Amino acid sequence: MVVVPTGSLEQHGPHLPVRTDTSLVSAVCEGAVSAARQAHRADALLAPTLWLGASHHHLPFFAASIDERTYVEVVTQLAASLAASGFTRLFFVNGHGGNAAPLRLAVNEIRRRCPGLLVAAAEYWALAAAAIRRTRGTGPGGAAHACEVETSLMLHLDPASVDMGAARPSWPQLPPLFVRDLIDGGPVTLGVEWDALSADGTMGDPTQASEEKGEVFLRAAVAATAEAVAAFARLDPGALRGGVPVSPARGGGSV
Amino acid sequence: MVVVPTGSLEQHGPHLPVRTDTSLVSAVCEGAVSAARQAHRADALLAPTLWLGASHHHLPFFAASIDERTYVEVVTQLAASLAASGFTRLFFVNGHGGNAAPLRLAVNEIRRRCPGLLVAAAEYWALAAAAIRRTRGTGPGGAAHACEVETSLMLHLDPASVDMGAARPSWPQLPPLFVRDLIDGGPVTLGVEWDALSADGTMGDPTQASEEKGEVFLRAAVAATAEAVAAFARLDPGALRGGVPVSPARGGGSV
Amino acid sequence: MVVVPTGSLEQHGPHLPVRTDTSLVSAVCEGAVSAARQAHRADALLAPTLWLGASHHHLPFFAASIDERTYVEVVTQLAASLAASGFTRLFFVNGHGGNAAPLRLAVNEIRRRCPGLLVAAAEYWALAAAAIRRTRGTGPGGAAHACEVETSLMLHLDPASVDMGAARPSWPQLPPLFVRDLIDGGPVTLGVEWDALSADGTMGDPTQASEEKGEVFLRAAVAATAEAVAAFARLDPGALRGGVPVSPARGGGSV
Amino acid sequence: MVVVPTGSLEQHGPHLPVRTDTSLVSAVCEGAVSAARQAHRADALLAPTLWLGASHHHLPFFAASIDERTYVEVVTQLAASLAASGFTRLFFVNGHGGNAAPLRLAVNEIRRRCPGLLVAAAEYWALAAAAIRRTRGTGPGGAAHACEVETSLMLHLDPASVDMGAARPSWPQLPPLFVRDLIDGGPVTLGVEWDALSADGTMGDPTQASEEKGEVFLRAAVAATAEAVAAFARLDPGALRGGVPVSPARGGGSV
Amino acid sequence: MVVVPTGSLEQHGPHLPVRTDTSLVSAVCEGAVSAARQAHRADALLAPTLWLGASHHHLPFFAASIDERTYVEVVTQLAASLAASGFTRLFFVNGHGGNAAPLRLAVNEIRRRCPGLLVAAAEYWALAAAAIRRTRGTGPGGAAHACEVETSLMLHLDPASVDMGAARPSWPQLPPLFVRDLIDGGPVTLGVEWDALSADGTMGDPTQASEEKGEVFLRAAVAATAEAVAAFARLDPGALRGGVPVSPARGGGSV
Amino acid sequence: MVVVPTGSLEQHGPHLPVRTDTSLVSAVCEGAVSAARQAHRADALLAPTLWLGASHHHLPFFAASIDERTYVEVVTQLAASLAASGFTRLFFVNGHGGNAAPLRLAVNEIRRRCPGLLVAAAEYWALAAAAIRRTRGTGPGGAAHACEVETSLMLHLDPASVDMGAARPSWPQLPPLFVRDLIDGGPVTLGVEWDALSADGTMGDPTQASEEKGEVFLRAAVAATAEAVAAFARLDPGALRGGVPVSPARGGGSV
Repeated sequence: MVVVPTGSLEQHGPHLPVRTDTSLVSAVCEGAVSAARQAHRADALLAPTLWLGASHHHLPFFAASIDERTYVEVVTQLAASLAASGFTRLFFVNGHGGNAAPLRLAVNEIRRRCPGLLVAAAEYWALAAAAIRRTRGTGPGGAAHACEVETSLMLHLDPASVDMGAARPSWPQLPPLFVRDLIDGGPVTLGVEWDALSADGTMGDPTQASEEKGEVFLRAAVAATAEAVAAFARLDPGALRGGVPVSPARGGGSV
Repeated sequence: MVVVPTGSLEQHGPHLPVRTDTSLVSAVCEGAVSAARQAHRADALLAPTLWLGASHHHLPFFAASIDERTYVEVVTQLAASLAASGFTRLFFVNGHGGNAAPLRLAVNEIRRRCPGLLVAAAEYWALAAAAIRRTRGTGPGGAAHACEVETSLMLHLDPASVDMGAARPSWPQLPPLFVRDLIDGGPVTLGVEWDALSADGTMGDPTQASEEKGEVFLRAAVAATAEAVAAFARLDPGALRGGVPVSPARGGGSV
Repeated sequence: MVVVPTGSLEQHGPHLPVRTDTSLVSAVCEGAVSAARQAHRADALLAPTLWLGASHHHLPFFAASIDERTYVEVVTQLAASLAASGFTRLFFVNGHGGNAAPLRLAVNEIRRRCPGLLVAAAEYWALAAAAIRRTRGTGPGGAAHACEVETSLMLHLDPASVDMGAARPSWPQLPPLFVRDLIDGGPVTLGVEWDALSADGTMGDPTQASEEKGEVFLRAAVAATAEAVAAFARLDPGALRGGVPVSPARGGGSV
Repeated sequence: MVVVPTGSLEQHGPHLPVRTDTSLVSAVCEGAVSAARQAHRADALLAPTLWLGASHHHLPFFAASIDERTYVEVVTQLAASLAASGFTRLFFVNGHGGNAAPLRLAVNEIRRRCPGLLVAAAEYWALAAAAIRRTRGTGPGGAAHACEVETSLMLHLDPASVDMGAARPSWPQLPPLFVRDLIDGGPVTLGVEWDALSADGTMGDPTQASEEKGEVFLRAAVAATAEAVAAFARLDPGALRGGVPVSPARGGGSV
Repeated sequence: MVVVPTGSLEQHGPHLPVRTDTSLVSAVCEGAVSAARQAHRADALLAPTLWLGASHHHLPFFAASIDERTYVEVVTQLAASLAASGFTRLFFVNGHGGNAAPLRLAVNEIRRRCPGLLVAAAEYWALAAAAIRRTRGTGPGGAAHACEVETSLMLHLDPASVDMGAARPSWPQLPPLFVRDLIDGGPVTLGVEWDALSADGTMGDPTQASEEKGEVFLRAAVAATAEAVAAFARLDPGALRGGVPVSPARGGGSV
Repeated sequence: MVVVPTGSLEQHGPHLPVRTDTSLVSAVCEGAVSAARQAHRADALLAPTLWLGASHHHLPFFAASIDERTYVEVVTQLAASLAASGFTRLFFVNGHGGNAAPLRLAVNEIRRRCPGLLVAAAEYWALAAAAIRRTRGTGPGGAAHACEVETSLMLHLDPASVDMGAARPSWPQLPPLFVRDLIDGGPVTLGVEWDALSADGTMGDPTQASEEKGEVFLRAAVAATAEAVAAFARLDPGALRGGVPVSPARGGGSV
């Protein structure tokens, strides 16, 4: 089993380094794989972090980026090469919002191209959503990009790289159904350029960040990711069907 | 402004017709566009429902389907042709889970290819999530496919097409982080074939469905979709930025 | 066996609705599949009409469209999903000129990708060419788009959607070898935009249309399509080779 | 203006060389371009013949081939490079049936990618259809591949390459609507492998061929191609619209 | 075994014809295949020369061209069709610099797509590098395009096509590590347009060319190519591994 | 200006870690960028090393890899995003043989897609070829993969990662024209799987490696790369044309 952390290289407001997503997901995965080995006896290898992500939406500020469809292909071929090299389980732990939808497509594509490979994907903030909700100071919209959550994590992990004096809150003027947030966003996805939503690249409120929150977020993300990795390692793909007593012939129903 | 409903044609257990997703999203959109016109004075055209969806995961049972990446291209080109024909706003209302991630990619692709077109996408069940949570009888996992929600809606809209005698609950044996549900699924996406998760194509519990619930779900979906369409029609793309007092020069932050 | 009608959504002059091709091919196929079942005892399922066609050439007026190569891929994947779902024969009945060449490519692509699937494609007006030639009042060029044939058919099938007061003849100034016509066009294909050939989107002479001609055209198209569907259903792909007495070894001939 | 002959390299029964299509279309175009220059004062350059065609359907016997979609891309890029090099008119004269549909797609693609380039395509046998119909001895099905027409032409142009002793008629057992013929085929395109239709690669009746017919066919093809080339050279793309007195605003018609 | 010569059609300065690369590689291969048959008893077929190359970098002057990635696909599919037709060895002899990198990619792609086909590629000037170095009068940079080598070869093979009065030396002002030369170029590849490097399309010094040098170059190229073709024909793909006494289990080494 | 090091992750015999190429090119570039800044006053940013390379040929042993064409696309899009972010010069320093040809294609593709970006690419061993030739103990074939050069470099940079006890020489049985070597390979590229050429993944003779040679190789690679980076930084793309006194009108020469 391999865990592949997926990050990005893109502007994170005036106060965080461009490598933020890559640094954070690397830290989460190092902790999680180590914990999964020890606490859960799950045998998982940690791959280097894929630092090149799908960040075209950040191009108005700065990004080293490939587009979403190329990202799907890259991740799928990476998976296929690992499958050809003998691995049978692959978990993408994602730390960049722009990679999320492409990774969902890739999971399907990988399932079809690599019959013997069991594959999964999750964002670390979604795994740690409960703890983040308990700890954050902002409501929906406060934690989207270079925000309360990411800034707190960087303050905890690499304070020298954070320039809190430059941090400013930035909330797009969006109706509730359109709000962007790592874990409590609205259901509508809107296609607008990043600089139409933010003047300095920030989305959310980094002034609510603190080293202490960062420690809580990291611990939660590591624990939840370790648990997910361990659960994935234990999954028996042949025993997932429910105990439903019926077995109607294939198909059925009227058109 | 155009509203494009996106559905699918795929097996829906032994008790629902293959056109379920297409029928439901068509009904929701017809109601919503009509309501948006009347209640919200939003001027929106309703396109025919795109009944060909990304349903490869249902192929073990039956699907007329294109793969996710082709779906992204189809939807993007459709948008580009509407933009070339003079439309400036486009809302995809989606009624099939397999289309969700491709539509997210397409929203980004469309934003890049069609500079003058404002585009958005949402699933109708996500728009109506609050009402569904209040009304459903099942917990997470009970509403995934041919489930309590879809069966209730069909019982309300087209009872003759439902064979409740054939309906059986089917819950995959998945850890909580992996649970599949239209609105309360876990954060991990797992790449397995549909027939590894379900014996008859159902995912969730259709036996909890009723015509009454269907009426509630439909009314909620219509209302929430109408509200989203109206909010989208009113959005001013030039006035979305928050009132943040800073304006640092482009880029910034250390690597 | 499945019959898939293929239409389009595009401007049809000032007098016909944009759904003309979709409406006409749907009507032809409904009649033909029903007749094939009754008169020819051919067992065929009718799929929903693929209303999204390759209509980029109509973009100067209006079209919801995908380009030709994407159309080839969509149709090929649709075929592959039907083959994977167990169907063994697939007949595309086409009602939009822009789909014709892509469908020819797709037939080849499908043959290669879906070894067990027998596939065919035809335009309904080509199937009914003899009757159309007997009945039409115009010569070559009179029946190309929103023309004598299509307008007659719509007058017969859905007169309320036709605005005959707005219909005007429109004949491009093309040499005989370049003439465009559904069934009697010249051999040269010329790459020019639609609005270079027509001022209002019409190509041909809709003022020659009548409900009576429409009835004749429809009856002929239904009958010829039913016959083709039935002949296709009876084809034995293992018994198509001629009774040629030689069997030279593979290849041969000098370079 | 450039004329690009398009041929192929593929098995042509036991009696003709694999280069048949390339040789024939080259001869037709050499004659036609020369005649267009002299008789019609049309200034046209003749490019080398594109001998690599879309011949996958001949792979059971032998072919050097690319698939249809790659053929579209090749031909489109070739056109774009000629447009970038300053040419403004491009005529593809085709001598291989498998290239016909891809060339139709390419004409559309070229029109879109190369705004300043006027492009056209035609098969030489379609240009010469009237003379072929008058002269041929066979009915529909007799002239499809390595047939009465192609064999006659080779007997006239390069008799040493023809092995008439090996020539045998080969007529697939197809219903009339499915018959294959260069100029009088049926309207239905059927997707079957070549070796399901012919035992030795021949389609039609080469035993009806003669050097005399070949001379007639060649003369007709040269004359008709020269006429088409000259007409194309004279086309004024700004003066193709008919003199229709109406000019309704763009779009129109009800959906 | 098949030998496929690969050329191009592009401007070659004011003194050489656009077909230069195609003419030269055709002559080399005709000689080499003949010599390989006689001197080395290697059985090789010579395909027609692929005259359409990857020459986009010459578009500022003139080229009939496809881009590099399409070239990879064309060459790969050509190989696949030859493999499907029964050939087991394929040697691309290249005479155009722009084809070199795409052919290297294609060799890998072909190896993966055509398991039973042994494939190789080489430039004729690289095969004859020793003789060229001994004979040329220019240093690095003198032999790049329409240069001492190509002009000499054309003076020998087709003097009527050479206009020596128009030939001028043209040396780009590049640092040594960036120098372009058929056989003694620097290691850095620089991405600039051709017309940024040369005023008339020439790269190198054609005034150093002579018919005598051309004869030497041709003889060397023919001999070296014949030798390479013969060596390739004798290769036993099952006996290429060195006699290394170890066989550690697959993989190994620490990450 | 940005320097992007390109590496890979693939088996390197039984004695070197899979990250060898990535580690080596990172070390070379760190030294070179630092030296270019100090000694040559060239202002260059160092990007993170792209550790995912085109290594499909190593799949029989182990590789995390994408195929060559996807590599071209990834590198081109990365360049385009850097150009969109304001960079104007980009130098790829490559440390993995499989990336070499794709990078050459990418340089052309980037030149076309990013008009304002000057791009270059080179392998570090080619830059340091003179020093490597002077120092190496092996002849052609001794330095191809996990070989004298790479093993020496790792002994110098990270001796703990090298297991010299497992190192064995491995020389494929190839004719001279086909020999593989980082700097002195033969001109013919042969398409065979890695495990047909090597029993343990090594290609060359790692037993000739020493820490001392590694120090020499590293120093030479750093110096030569710094020099190339500095020369690239100084290049004036508008002053590369030679002082040739002619300027014939575009094109010319006879076909």
